[in-house]
Amino acid sequence: MATIAPGPTTTTTASLTRTGIVDCDVHVYPRGNDEIKSRLSMPWRDRYGGGGRGFFGNPVHGSRLDSNPPNGGPVGSDPDFLRKQLIDEYGIAYAVLLPRAFCNLHPDPDFGTAIAAAFNDWLAETWLSEYNPDGVFKGSITVNTQDPVAAVKEIERWAGHPHVVQVMTDSGARAPFGQRQYHPIYEACERHGFRFAIHPGTDGMGINVQPSPGYPTHYIEWHTCLSLAFQAHLVSLLTEGVFVRFPGLGVTLTEGGVSWLPALMWRLDAEWKSLRSEVPWLDKPPSAYLRDHVRLSSQPIETPDNPKHLLAMLDLLDAEHVLMFASDYPHWDFDSPTHAFPRLPETLHRRIFGETAREWYGLE
Amino acid sequence: MATIAPGPTTTTTASLTRTGIVDCDVHVYPRGNDEIKSRLSMPWRDRYGGGGRGFFGNPVHGSRLDSNPPNGGPVGSDPDFLRKQLIDEYGIAYAVLLPRAFCNLHPDPDFGTAIAAAFNDWLAETWLSEYNPDGVFKGSITVNTQDPVAAVKEIERWAGHPHVVQVMTDSGARAPFGQRQYHPIYEACERHGFRFAIHPGTDGMGINVQPSPGYPTHYIEWHTCLSLAFQAHLVSLLTEGVFVRFPGLGVTLTEGGVSWLPALMWRLDAEWKSLRSEVPWLDKPPSAYLRDHVRLSSQPIETPDNPKHLLAMLDLLDAEHVLMFASDYPHWDFDSPTHAFPRLPETLHRRIFGETAREWYGLE
Repeated sequence: MATIAPGPTTTTTASLTRTGIVDCDVHVYPRGNDEIKSRLSMPWRDRYGGGGRGFFGNPVHGSRLDSNPPNGGPVGSDPDFLRKQLIDEYGIAYAVLLPRAFCNLHPDPDFGTAIAAAFNDWLAETWLSEYNPDGVFKGSITVNTQDPVAAVKEIERWAGHPHVVQVMTDSGARAPFGQRQYHPIYEACERHGFRFAIHPGTDGMGINVQPSPGYPTHYIEWHTCLSLAFQAHLVSLLTEGVFVRFPGLGVTLTEGGVSWLPALMWRLDAEWKSLRSEVPWLDKPPSAYLRDHVRLSSQPIETPDNPKHLLAMLDLLDAEHVLMFASDYPHWDFDSPTHAFPRLPETLHRRIFGETAREWYGLE
Repeated sequence: MATIAPGPTTTTTASLTRTGIVDCDVHVYPRGNDEIKSRLSMPWRDRYGGGGRGFFGNPVHGSRLDSNPPNGGPVGSDPDFLRKQLIDEYGIAYAVLLPRAFCNLHPDPDFGTAIAAAFNDWLAETWLSEYNPDGVFKGSITVNTQDPVAAVKEIERWAGHPHVVQVMTDSGARAPFGQRQYHPIYEACERHGFRFAIHPGTDGMGINVQPSPGYPTHYIEWHTCLSLAFQAHLVSLLTEGVFVRFPGLGVTLTEGGVSWLPALMWRLDAEWKSLRSEVPWLDKPPSAYLRDHVRLSSQPIETPDNPKHLLAMLDLLDAEHVLMFASDYPHWDFDSPTHAFPRLPETLHRRIFGETAREWYGLE
């Protein structure tokens, strides 16, 4: 055996020697996070959330500072205040609600499915009925995409509900959304007339893969690149031929950015021209399926320094047909209906701020 | 013990019973791939490459069909033919060479580093000397980014070489390229005046993570989305402050697409406005660092149906400052200097087809 240097010499206050058991694995804990936070310098003191919480939160604030309901409760939980701050303030005719259940990151698919069902029951009993006398709220039910069979059952539970307009999932996944295991979900959406919405979230969390070349370092990097994973899901949906198999299916891409669309479609259409033998079910360019089967919600709309650049981009991406306004209330990067966009041509404004969404969701 | 159904009844030609050992794991092999290929229907027969090769190859063809040298040898291996088909055909003054070593996917970093060095020696002894009497060829040496310390040593081996202009890597990685472990490589590039080039490849191969939400299904999906991983690397380089730490560093983004740039920079600049406390080393918008420190090579330039759309996009992405022509000879999606672009304004044409690259690489 090699010679190992002696360990440190320790003493105790009680005596210099002790008899009895030596236990080599004992955990002690601070009485609270403050015992650690007070020993961290800024900005880490502000950001530290306690043991085991390694993942990203917005380091500034996740919601509008003015969106806390005056009578208490979390942001977005008070229907009267939401009506005052959003519906009445801007004259919203319909608000499509997307609760955030974060159900598809659990190792146990039954747990994820149960969370989805609980959120859907809650949504239906509150925002879609009790809080909804005038029908301004239209709902998205959540499904756990990790268990497609259970997701289909959940979709069937809401078939025919007067205020459910779509089925939603977070973008976090272990496989791109065009792949076969998800097809029963699309079949159920098509059969019951629900749009299928993808919303950023749970990427790289829990059991989901991190959809980038290794783990990002900062929230700004993670949040910027959410939009890239979104694009990968779209390419998967298009190339796998989901819209050929389910011609009545419509996919809503929510909160994933907008201006990337022309570059991605130009690239994919060019690849299709050379490689269409690999995806023979696509008998027209992928972008043609997009125009028929996909809509993007606008927030966070990109804001180049020169507003004319955004207008040029809206033209390149055929915004008149594919773009629908969204505010992302009450999040920190809320887009105001009156300020988020530069002045738009009359027709384009009408399409983005209502007409396309009314057609898409069958609203009057 | 539960009752298990009896197994299948088998017979042998020799006798109905046998004594002796039963061996439960024996492998037999076809005499060649054709024994399997002949039993596959099309298109799988064309694509099947034998056991263990599960990864993507271009299902059509990876190189121009006319690029096979008439005197034999692989595409791109005959200097006389390459001069005839590319240099002389189009009046190329300088061709920046990017060999394809695929070294950064090996589990053993010493193996990857050895492959890089062998490629660099080969390049220097052939294309940069014997084949290069007129200096038309400028070289990119390859480094294995999985071992940054060894990569620095490799870079130092080529310091001062008259025809080496940059250090290159494939985009496949286990961590985005802005992260700390790579910084010694950037310090060495800065110190020796080499540009650092990233080229698509080895994504999701060998030890590298698949930089998308799970594994793509088809080559068209994989190839389209290479451009997304590229963008994630760029966001990492910018947000980690690599260009603040190494103000003399220049990064060339090669063959990763072009038209995604405005959308990505608009999004990242907007995030920076809200989240700059997280990346306090960036004292100007990320896009400003891009303009000073990053150049994109043009192939595969996007080709919208309407050429005016590409001109609009080139304007949005400040092509006059950041874009440099590349052909990607001899690959299947080669961009011809005379046909790939629509007619460009005089200044823009001059910048893209030479001026920017001459400045970037210090060429006369």
